[in-house]
Amino acid sequence: MKIKHIGLLGLGTVGSGVARIIRDHQEKIQNQFGFSVQVDKVLVRDPKKIPEEFRGSFTVVSDYREIMEDPAIDLVVEVMGGIDFAKECLEAAFFNHKPVVTANKDLIAAYGKDLTRQAEEAGVSLRYEASVAGGIPILRALRESLAGDKLESVTGILNGTTNFILTKMTQEGADYAEVLKEAQALGFAEADPTSDVDGLDALRKVVILCKIAFGADVPMAKIPVQGIREVTPQDIQLAKDWGLVMKLLGRIQTSEQGEIFAEVAPFLVAKGHPLSQVDHEMNSIYTQGKASGTLMFYGAGAGELPTASAVLGDLLTICQELEQGVRPVAFARYEQELAWMSEDEVQARHFFHLAMAKDSQSLTPLLDQLGIHLEKSLVVPHDSKEGWTDFVGITELISYAQRQEFMAKVEACDQLVLRSVYGLMD
Amino acid sequence: MKIKHIGLLGLGTVGSGVARIIRDHQEKIQNQFGFSVQVDKVLVRDPKKIPEEFRGSFTVVSDYREIMEDPAIDLVVEVMGGIDFAKECLEAAFFNHKPVVTANKDLIAAYGKDLTRQAEEAGVSLRYEASVAGGIPILRALRESLAGDKLESVTGILNGTTNFILTKMTQEGADYAEVLKEAQALGFAEADPTSDVDGLDALRKVVILCKIAFGADVPMAKIPVQGIREVTPQDIQLAKDWGLVMKLLGRIQTSEQGEIFAEVAPFLVAKGHPLSQVDHEMNSIYTQGKASGTLMFYGAGAGELPTASAVLGDLLTICQELEQGVRPVAFARYEQELAWMSEDEVQARHFFHLAMAKDSQSLTPLLDQLGIHLEKSLVVPHDSKEGWTDFVGITELISYAQRQEFMAKVEACDQLVLRSVYGLMD
Repeated sequence: MKIKHIGLLGLGTVGSGVARIIRDHQEKIQNQFGFSVQVDKVLVRDPKKIPEEFRGSFTVVSDYREIMEDPAIDLVVEVMGGIDFAKECLEAAFFNHKPVVTANKDLIAAYGKDLTRQAEEAGVSLRYEASVAGGIPILRALRESLAGDKLESVTGILNGTTNFILTKMTQEGADYAEVLKEAQALGFAEADPTSDVDGLDALRKVVILCKIAFGADVPMAKIPVQGIREVTPQDIQLAKDWGLVMKLLGRIQTSEQGEIFAEVAPFLVAKGHPLSQVDHEMNSIYTQGKASGTLMFYGAGAGELPTASAVLGDLLTICQELEQGVRPVAFARYEQELAWMSEDEVQARHFFHLAMAKDSQSLTPLLDQLGIHLEKSLVVPHDSKEGWTDFVGITELISYAQRQEFMAKVEACDQLVLRSVYGLMD
Repeated sequence: MKIKHIGLLGLGTVGSGVARIIRDHQEKIQNQFGFSVQVDKVLVRDPKKIPEEFRGSFTVVSDYREIMEDPAIDLVVEVMGGIDFAKECLEAAFFNHKPVVTANKDLIAAYGKDLTRQAEEAGVSLRYEASVAGGIPILRALRESLAGDKLESVTGILNGTTNFILTKMTQEGADYAEVLKEAQALGFAEADPTSDVDGLDALRKVVILCKIAFGADVPMAKIPVQGIREVTPQDIQLAKDWGLVMKLLGRIQTSEQGEIFAEVAPFLVAKGHPLSQVDHEMNSIYTQGKASGTLMFYGAGAGELPTASAVLGDLLTICQELEQGVRPVAFARYEQELAWMSEDEVQARHFFHLAMAKDSQSLTPLLDQLGIHLEKSLVVPHDSKEGWTDFVGITELISYAQRQEFMAKVEACDQLVLRSVYGLMD
């Protein structure tokens, strides 16, 4: 039986998972594809750290050229993470006409366009299913299964760490800082949680989804991002009483006029909405298409084996392309020019929480002036300043421009202090 | 720009959807693939029934040979339904080396193996994503995204009509017969609902899933099927009080020893389980894989445009294969011999509902004798026979063999009447 030879860059969590699946699922792979897959060479920084179970099963190298320039290697799998060195490796792979599978969202969000072009010029594939939502096969579904549909919106719980934290805060009424510590102890959050809790990890996935679902090259800097550091147990509880659940969402929406808008922010999701029920470290992507209607994909967004499973799907597709001798079509082949939607057009109901001086008459005229109507509101005790009270409300549909104006006016008013504003998703 | 020419068999609900999407999404298709797609010929029984919007946009034929023998036709789409005539058409397509996309679950469940072989011999593709769960891209995910994983179980809400009926019965406490009438009036159930409510439609999808997820050719007759006609609002309510939701499931499970078991039956799903929240006419497939872990796919299981969207995904994949000039690999390429799991090995907790003569002492010794332990139980009023009472219980884990024996013993006992038994899923 023919063998496909793999060069693996990185043997951390995901890399070990890839090596394990290839070793343990060989029979199924051979059965389906008529070839077997073998990890021949692995690039690692410290050869001493190779786990016992893998000793002797592949050649360990410390210079990536030993993989890229080896004519026996059919395909390169990059699971190191990081940007600059990974980019250098991928470029060397393409230079040597080797196809690449990567799980590296940072790299693809930053340099996907450029790397796609290089792969195309080299006549080889570049695939990165594992870069978005780990084990959930969302990119292939968007690109292939939904190729004939026109998507209208894609909304996802794209980061397991923040979903774990928000779920705990919701279930236990606990504080952000407290739950973060617990998440770190359990290995669900990194020692430096910035990339997760500030929404940057979700942002990178949104950039990749913009491209694969809508063919849009949206620069990261264009997309507004808000993390979860400021989320309070009090707001979670108040929203819960109104049937709303706090979730960090990545959202991409388009208009009939061919515009796009993307954002990452904590949203309050109505309890009936399928995304409201995605808890703990799970991820989920919810799509609306003209033909397909509502679809939802749910699963593990990270972890050794789920992520490795996504890598394997890509790897086997490319091995089959090699077997068939086809010149592959770029994975990110869809390309359209979409204008950025103006803040007048993006609309949502909003939850807001203000502190106001007890005798203040400022809020009602301000809302009237901006044409903001409230669906419901509540006065709750203020927790610090004497002579103040808290006011929580849910607006009818308002534009993001109205929200901005509202926030600016509140900022300018002595008698009002804005504590939080969240969009609603229903 | 190159044009791919389609011959469409059938212009009913799904056929019209296919023609509409191809017409309306042309620009996106061209952008992604570099070719355009055109419906050239449509086979219909009654040419007078062609909707106004399509008049003049394609040639209407009444003999399928006008499509199969036309060298200009690149690909055949079969969306007529039915078995014998559809089979004849597909065989003619393969005889003429034309690839086929079909949405026909009855045909694939009955003759998938045979048709796959014919397509392979002709060197063309046969794809049928739309045959299972309509717009949900489950088959491609199982076959391609999860190609490197080993699946352990696949469980689905695979029939929208029965899910609609059970949801209504649950929400409104209404009777099966009553809700069926309503579903028929709303177009969610057919005049003759047999295929849906007796579980036969779900059964066909289970047969296809056995093949694509596990490579197993399981004959339809092997799979136990139970429909929803006997489900009572009382059992739904009793189970609800115990945090359980009634759903008609298609379930496929495998053992470590390489055995498989599949069934279609109403199950009681624990409220925390994602499948318990899939309501109305929606479908969902829940998978457990060694590497991918838990995945769930949710969406519209039927309907003009969702089903047509799935057809289009297949159609575009095949058009691209034609463009690349590759000899395709069979969609159902995965094949393994799996023994049928014995009823001793298949296990679940069970809900059961008995009527018993008021002074009966039969039940406890019977349960003891079979080694069945109860987790909880309840005595409820009996609704017809004087001097009888009803007993409802939930067992600990028991095997299907134990269940069978229990049912036989109850049957043989004068003082007990079995009203219902349902497996639990949690």
